[in-house]
Amino acid sequence: MQTAKKETVEKRLKALRQRMDKKGIDVSLFWDPDNEYYLSGFRAISYSRPIVLLVYKDKTQYIIPALENDHARENAAVDEFFVYHEKIQNSHLDTQYFQPLNRILDDVSKNNVLGIEMGIVPASVYQFIREKGFEIKDIGQDLIDMRAIKDQEEIYWLEQAGLLSDIALEASFANVKSGMSELEFDSYGDMKLLETASKDYPDLIVGYENWTCSGIERSAMPHLYSSTRKFEQNDVVVHSRQVWINGYRAENERTFLIGNPTDEQRKCLQLAIDAQEAGMNVIKPGVKAKEVDIASFKVFEKAGYGNFVQHRIGHGLGLTEHEEPYLRFDNDLVLEEGMVYTIEPGIYIPGVGGFRHSDTVILTKDGCRSITKYPRHIEALSF
Amino acid sequence: MQTAKKETVEKRLKALRQRMDKKGIDVSLFWDPDNEYYLSGFRAISYSRPIVLLVYKDKTQYIIPALENDHARENAAVDEFFVYHEKIQNSHLDTQYFQPLNRILDDVSKNNVLGIEMGIVPASVYQFIREKGFEIKDIGQDLIDMRAIKDQEEIYWLEQAGLLSDIALEASFANVKSGMSELEFDSYGDMKLLETASKDYPDLIVGYENWTCSGIERSAMPHLYSSTRKFEQNDVVVHSRQVWINGYRAENERTFLIGNPTDEQRKCLQLAIDAQEAGMNVIKPGVKAKEVDIASFKVFEKAGYGNFVQHRIGHGLGLTEHEEPYLRFDNDLVLEEGMVYTIEPGIYIPGVGGFRHSDTVILTKDGCRSITKYPRHIEALSF
Repeated sequence: MQTAKKETVEKRLKALRQRMDKKGIDVSLFWDPDNEYYLSGFRAISYSRPIVLLVYKDKTQYIIPALENDHARENAAVDEFFVYHEKIQNSHLDTQYFQPLNRILDDVSKNNVLGIEMGIVPASVYQFIREKGFEIKDIGQDLIDMRAIKDQEEIYWLEQAGLLSDIALEASFANVKSGMSELEFDSYGDMKLLETASKDYPDLIVGYENWTCSGIERSAMPHLYSSTRKFEQNDVVVHSRQVWINGYRAENERTFLIGNPTDEQRKCLQLAIDAQEAGMNVIKPGVKAKEVDIASFKVFEKAGYGNFVQHRIGHGLGLTEHEEPYLRFDNDLVLEEGMVYTIEPGIYIPGVGGFRHSDTVILTKDGCRSITKYPRHIEALSF
Repeated sequence: MQTAKKETVEKRLKALRQRMDKKGIDVSLFWDPDNEYYLSGFRAISYSRPIVLLVYKDKTQYIIPALENDHARENAAVDEFFVYHEKIQNSHLDTQYFQPLNRILDDVSKNNVLGIEMGIVPASVYQFIREKGFEIKDIGQDLIDMRAIKDQEEIYWLEQAGLLSDIALEASFANVKSGMSELEFDSYGDMKLLETASKDYPDLIVGYENWTCSGIERSAMPHLYSSTRKFEQNDVVVHSRQVWINGYRAENERTFLIGNPTDEQRKCLQLAIDAQEAGMNVIKPGVKAKEVDIASFKVFEKAGYGNFVQHRIGHGLGLTEHEEPYLRFDNDLVLEEGMVYTIEPGIYIPGVGGFRHSDTVILTKDGCRSITKYPRHIEALSF
């Protein structure tokens, strides 16, 4: 299994340590699986057994369950491992993650300042660290900032995810017909995606999620899971797909029409397409996050549909389904090269339907480049 | 979309309020999506926009993003809704979840005791509540205890999930052959599962996850994602599938052999089957969790394979992938009717492979009933 290269992890740790230094943080404790993957190259399959990553000025430590021991030692670019067990012969060893954590923290001078992900670490763990007498600062925002700007290795995997998502969309659309269920529509894309991954990316981890909402009522709710509802003549359908490879995700969404849509439905889909284009035309380094949101919003507003907007135009994308910072009307963040965003303005109109495309773009030196390329115009999306 | 019935939710809220009363908790604040679904009947698709459920003695409140407004009002059995927005026309209204939360908590008397899920609520939210001057107690363990014993509605959905998982396994095994990838093997089951769901469960939410680990090296690591590695002659393969419908999950795992396994591989698979049977024979109301784990372990130990055990025999199952409490050697919990567990003892031997079946069982009055029924004996699992 391919994971982040050792040099890549070292570069990230160096950047993290500079931030820790600036903030006066001596030791950082990470709880979030995506942050841990980013900083170590290792991802476990489940976190019902907690995994803790500690980053010092001169070393790193992992607290891991025995179950992940081989897997972690093979993949994690980490200096020391502390293993906790859950079988009876090892009852004399550590059997809970907080036992080694307790000893580790007892060895750290109480004058040290601890960094934790304040927005993620559970209250019980925070309380445990506080009661040991440490001063605590937030390190979570630093990881958000670091991860917002993708390095070359990350961009490579994002592009592969985009490619795979396009291949999946092609396969789903090649089979679309009235009478098939939302889940069946998804499954054609899934199957093709897995076949392709088997051939082109041997030994890599590929995954996907779909949300397909068909019909006036379901498409008008922006966030629903795919269901067994069957497509009907004259349906509006919003199909959303995220694909990930080696941890990195692309989002690819298309609204499509079956049979004979009403004039208003065609008009609304065109508006969503125009609003997306407006956002893509504005986004580039130096522009504020809110300017992109507002550019798209204005297209809807000008046509009298501003009231049917419900959500921001986009979110960051990388290892996590939705990554901060967001493209919101109130976000003054100045965008930078290497940031990755979905551009997905939408309107949701009772009695008419929902209309939203989403593409994933990488900010280049002077604009953006979409890593999802499935056709966006109405003709290609009418069945 | 079918969700928990209103009466079911009311029954659960009544049980929760009795527990709050006993602990002296006046208001409980929930952050965990599964707990929120359990107590309200509503589940959002994503939680990058936080959702907060508040339970008082005489009412319930939801803080939700505008995006989920329609969906929540349609599905959630909750008294009051507070919506926060992310579009520019609503910039005069709440735009972050903590704005209504702040006002709500300002209205609550500071003499009140607040219950939160200490193991789940992020440190930043805990700190925010603490700084308001409330006494805080844990309510998370109560939800673990409540959810551990499934009601009739939950058991119904668990059984449907078990059925669907068996259908998926049948389809995957009907197509197994040397040269296919792990992901392709999974995809036959996925497709059949979705087809079946479309026919038999119209308008319900169905999902699944697979982990297929093939070959000596990969099968010997208990927790890996399916990859594009291709099955080879004489492979040992551990195939794991979780299927969920209406939120409820069944786990169904089989180890199988391709071609001509070695004598030791056959012996180890038989041991895993025997160890699972030993666990199933012991589990029933009145027995301690640890007795089940130890019964399985002894089968491995007696045969000289105790050292190759890495994990507990099973976990609770319901809305969450792994639910507490666990079947561990050190858990004195006395089991009760209506609890649901995976029984999945495994051994992982370098140079030989990994061997583990998993079935999901419901504790009945005097034993257990498996909701996953795919054949477990070696003959049915040799290809």
